[in-house]
Amino acid sequence: MANAEKTHAALPYTADEDGMLLIGGERADDIAARFDAPVFVYDRRLIDQTVARLRACMPSDLRLHYAIKANPFAPLLEHMAGLVDGFDVASAGELERLSQHPQSDLPVSFAGPGKRDSELAAAIDAECCVNLESEGELNRLAQIARQKGRLAKAAIRINPPFELRGSGMRMGGGAKPFGIDDVDVPGLLQSWPKDALDFQGFQIFTGSQSLSAEALSEAHGNALRLALDCACYAPKPAKIFNIGGGLGVPYFPGDKPVDVDAVGASLAAAMDALRDQIAETKVVMELGRFFVAEAGVYLTRIVDKKRSRGTTFLVTEGGLHHQLAVSGNFGQVFRKNYPVALANRFSRAETDLETVNIVGCLCTPLDRLGDDVDLPSAQVGDIVAIFRCGAYGPTASPSGFLSHPACQEILL
Amino acid sequence: MANAEKTHAALPYTADEDGMLLIGGERADDIAARFDAPVFVYDRRLIDQTVARLRACMPSDLRLHYAIKANPFAPLLEHMAGLVDGFDVASAGELERLSQHPQSDLPVSFAGPGKRDSELAAAIDAECCVNLESEGELNRLAQIARQKGRLAKAAIRINPPFELRGSGMRMGGGAKPFGIDDVDVPGLLQSWPKDALDFQGFQIFTGSQSLSAEALSEAHGNALRLALDCACYAPKPAKIFNIGGGLGVPYFPGDKPVDVDAVGASLAAAMDALRDQIAETKVVMELGRFFVAEAGVYLTRIVDKKRSRGTTFLVTEGGLHHQLAVSGNFGQVFRKNYPVALANRFSRAETDLETVNIVGCLCTPLDRLGDDVDLPSAQVGDIVAIFRCGAYGPTASPSGFLSHPACQEILL
Repeated sequence: MANAEKTHAALPYTADEDGMLLIGGERADDIAARFDAPVFVYDRRLIDQTVARLRACMPSDLRLHYAIKANPFAPLLEHMAGLVDGFDVASAGELERLSQHPQSDLPVSFAGPGKRDSELAAAIDAECCVNLESEGELNRLAQIARQKGRLAKAAIRINPPFELRGSGMRMGGGAKPFGIDDVDVPGLLQSWPKDALDFQGFQIFTGSQSLSAEALSEAHGNALRLALDCACYAPKPAKIFNIGGGLGVPYFPGDKPVDVDAVGASLAAAMDALRDQIAETKVVMELGRFFVAEAGVYLTRIVDKKRSRGTTFLVTEGGLHHQLAVSGNFGQVFRKNYPVALANRFSRAETDLETVNIVGCLCTPLDRLGDDVDLPSAQVGDIVAIFRCGAYGPTASPSGFLSHPACQEILL
Repeated sequence: MANAEKTHAALPYTADEDGMLLIGGERADDIAARFDAPVFVYDRRLIDQTVARLRACMPSDLRLHYAIKANPFAPLLEHMAGLVDGFDVASAGELERLSQHPQSDLPVSFAGPGKRDSELAAAIDAECCVNLESEGELNRLAQIARQKGRLAKAAIRINPPFELRGSGMRMGGGAKPFGIDDVDVPGLLQSWPKDALDFQGFQIFTGSQSLSAEALSEAHGNALRLALDCACYAPKPAKIFNIGGGLGVPYFPGDKPVDVDAVGASLAAAMDALRDQIAETKVVMELGRFFVAEAGVYLTRIVDKKRSRGTTFLVTEGGLHHQLAVSGNFGQVFRKNYPVALANRFSRAETDLETVNIVGCLCTPLDRLGDDVDLPSAQVGDIVAIFRCGAYGPTASPSGFLSHPACQEILL
């Protein structure tokens, strides 16, 4: 743990008297022993804490939506249904996953630049709000709604003229495949096909994975004002302003957690200033990884320990086929280390630290899980824990690569 | 096609009189219409041609092995069994895939740095040669063999002191998780556990995806000489020198195909010079992507066409969940374009070219399939063809990402 404490944001995990990592109150070795494969462990109490912490510092009438693309594991979705005020899906497949929890009647919106006709039809059937990404999509949705003889719920996703500064992924500003350029929105609203589409409001997504409260506050404020400007042209009052989220996770050495108090205070001020104008409108913050990343730990056993030309390698059963992002091959230009530890020697004051490279089992040099990490001296059979793996894990990884066994997942 | 002709190595595809791309003699639109999803189409005749071309310029006694990690699609494996002299697998799962073609009794070797005990046991049962990656793995294999009362076939994978210069992926030289450092090989051979392990020879893999005949020839020659040096210490004459492969595929603008005549001539000279010393040894070249990449085309329909701040986007049904490498997120630092075309306007002399960005359907800015590509003016419903997609496609992509439908595959 020395390495993680030295360089990564503090982790919300402890160990028992044996030095064994505890997740959700259970020992990591007990959890690993239940499975014959690497496993992603999600701790529901950490998710609860994250949501509660956010609610405590956000305006009380802000709605929190979960973007299920971050982690669509069924037990986790079921748990989220009791915590958030709505869901966002990015495909008909995700909508289908939600429909397997019919006890939840939370509102659902559907964003994504390449919605097929069959997906638009599924959205209408599910009474899901379609966040329109283009004029072409608007026309297709209206046509399908007319064919069905139903009104389709629809919002406009606006491609804003600003972006979330310093975000990991910019999704607004400039030419983008996402949403309709802000300058084209008034025209579309003025010719809105009221016979087919029931106008709901706006979604504005400016970026993701930002750790800067200042940049987030600026983006949220800009998004609110842009939505209000566009609402003047709407066929009826907007029910929803989805201002995106963008709150990041401190994955890498030197990263600091988002100052959510500052983000909340700034948003409260912005909403208060516009209180009269948004009286009929629900302001929605849509978050994925922020809710779940911290609550997930990837556990994988060490299969081999070897030295090569002075460097020590720990080779694990798992690898990038389960957790691609850890290898640095998913949206990162240069690889950096996630926090990593030996699960079975998590908290003891260790004096026998050694610097190791942790690699996965794949026969490719891309499969790097930790470079130059200081760990207690490890043995074959020990368990490596990689933290902040609750989002974009198994579903965002090439699970079929080299035909290795699939990982397992469990919510504790 | 103007764009691809201008900048990418020439493609082995033609069109019919309608301008429709032909793959394996069939029209791309007919193939696409058979599936309700994007499809990878593999042309067996192009694979045949690639293997035949290589055989024609390589020494006649060189053995060609197929590394099935590049593409383990079952019909393709079955076809490869009639073309090559052996297979290399990287997991027990790949070994299992091969066992589903019992008609093939070609030799199989198993490389990979994190082989579990169960995988070593499976290799012994299948009489597959294990390429040992460490002393620890050697000891584990010997122990399992003794428990089974069988001799395990084993070769040493040597981590060489040289590398394949300019290769896309360096797998030799320096500290590596792959193989046993050359300096440690004599000691291991001198204490070889003959009661448990049947010595087969050596594997030396120096890198992959090189387009330089000079670098490849140097690496092959170095590998041969290193294997010979190590063979002096072996418990019995080596049956196999697997010198790796490394022959690359010209994916990107400006890339030139490998001069295989030069590589073959150089290898022939190296082998001739050592003829007496390798009389009992089969020299093996192990290739994956080189055999199959050119023979694969990814076809995906256009769902939306939109303009954003002066840029035209074509949004397709498919995306990085089917072909991650095309998005630049698998082993590349900066994204470059694969060759891409409109399948339904493949060969006509087009005068209405437009510059477009091609993106996938995923709700992430990572899902880029072609940046600033000059294509004939496209419409919704047209088919985008991405070439050189026969290797590291579906199995090397995050197929579960955003819960979109899986792609299909077909061998023609």
